[in-house]
Amino acid sequence: MTYCVAMRLKAGLLFASDSRTNAGVDHIATFRKMNLFEVPGQRLVTILNAGNLATTQSVLNLLRQRCAHEGAQLLNVGSMYDAAELVGRTLKEVVARDSVDVPQGQGIDFGANFLVGGQIQGEEPRLFHVYPQGNFIEATEDTPYFQIGEAKYGKPIIDRVISFDSTLIEASKCTLISFDSTIRSNLSVGLPLDMLLYRTDSFAPAQPHRIDAEDPYFNQLRRGWGEGLRQVFKALPDEEWFG
Amino acid sequence: MTYCVAMRLKAGLLFASDSRTNAGVDHIATFRKMNLFEVPGQRLVTILNAGNLATTQSVLNLLRQRCAHEGAQLLNVGSMYDAAELVGRTLKEVVARDSVDVPQGQGIDFGANFLVGGQIQGEEPRLFHVYPQGNFIEATEDTPYFQIGEAKYGKPIIDRVISFDSTLIEASKCTLISFDSTIRSNLSVGLPLDMLLYRTDSFAPAQPHRIDAEDPYFNQLRRGWGEGLRQVFKALPDEEWFG
Repeated sequence: MTYCVAMRLKAGLLFASDSRTNAGVDHIATFRKMNLFEVPGQRLVTILNAGNLATTQSVLNLLRQRCAHEGAQLLNVGSMYDAAELVGRTLKEVVARDSVDVPQGQGIDFGANFLVGGQIQGEEPRLFHVYPQGNFIEATEDTPYFQIGEAKYGKPIIDRVISFDSTLIEASKCTLISFDSTIRSNLSVGLPLDMLLYRTDSFAPAQPHRIDAEDPYFNQLRRGWGEGLRQVFKALPDEEWFG
Repeated sequence: MTYCVAMRLKAGLLFASDSRTNAGVDHIATFRKMNLFEVPGQRLVTILNAGNLATTQSVLNLLRQRCAHEGAQLLNVGSMYDAAELVGRTLKEVVARDSVDVPQGQGIDFGANFLVGGQIQGEEPRLFHVYPQGNFIEATEDTPYFQIGEAKYGKPIIDRVISFDSTLIEASKCTLISFDSTIRSNLSVGLPLDMLLYRTDSFAPAQPHRIDAEDPYFNQLRRGWGEGLRQVFKALPDEEWFG
């Protein structure tokens, strides 16, 4: 599996992804799930992927290959909406190609989910979730974040802490805690993580951070959060259930 | 959906279940998912259920009806192992009966999961998870708890806090926090909760507690936990991601 989070806040955008892929428990590998398409000063399009690795790799390969071509592609579409539509269309193309002539699909799920976010000159930063069917939804001020993959373990902390007005520093702290909870409870999500922060209207060259098991800040957070939780737990009142 | 937790600790057993069932979002109802079979002084068998409501109701009905009959039934089986096997067998019987003559199952999942725990004179307290296929596993000192239904949201806190040596008071506190996280993040799990604590070797009459939205202890925990988390979060160090 996979765990990816993206947030669209007033201050900017956050993207984070783990790097574990697995087919069963004995075929584990590391693949980056964060993909950047950028023209500094003009646009940044970031794509996070979860799902069938053959599908997601093909979608990203086609999107990248076509950047050299005429016609709509990620380096020239006029809006993030068009970028999301292009990702959805390419996904449908790949799934149709790969699943044809596979009898009853042989029980294989060719599907994938994508988070597509960024900023294109002339627009605000925007964030979309592209579904396996190729259609998509956009994050709003009320719902400023999306998750794909193993989303449930790390959702409660985001629900409690994040709003559209959160700072990028708060968002990155919360995201790392969310990953820590997920990694502790689910073997199929693993380090290293990739994280990218983008300040609204900066159009600066993207500087993704890779966070591994030795990362001092991540380890400080993990320790501090674990200890803090246990202290809060201890300080909560007890109930005498037995009379 | 549903969320149920059961723990088998040195000190005793804990069972907790929510009470929401839904078919889609517009057919929501309240059903107790905690079922007791007891002979005070001699045995307590508790069954929590998740999954297809027609299936779980039929399984519990048959188990209960047959308590009046000759042959193996929950009030006379000699061990908790036999109790779990009986639940699994009854589950297979119901699924086989209900799914026959339904063309291709019409896409319906007839499956259900059960947590079966308790103590029978002559044995330690024991806890089993009965799978939809009718086979089952037992909790051990290394893995002293099981969850069924919407288990992921509320798993991280249990993983961090609970061990075989936890007290029943700690376990009940942790369980209520786990339910709070789940209820906040998932609409299909809802109040009231049923909770039952059982002290090892007590064989006392079971006294389940019903916890609703007005329960003062549950509300104290929810508030205290939410505030505590936000304080721990705030106190954690910030990282200056942008140079």
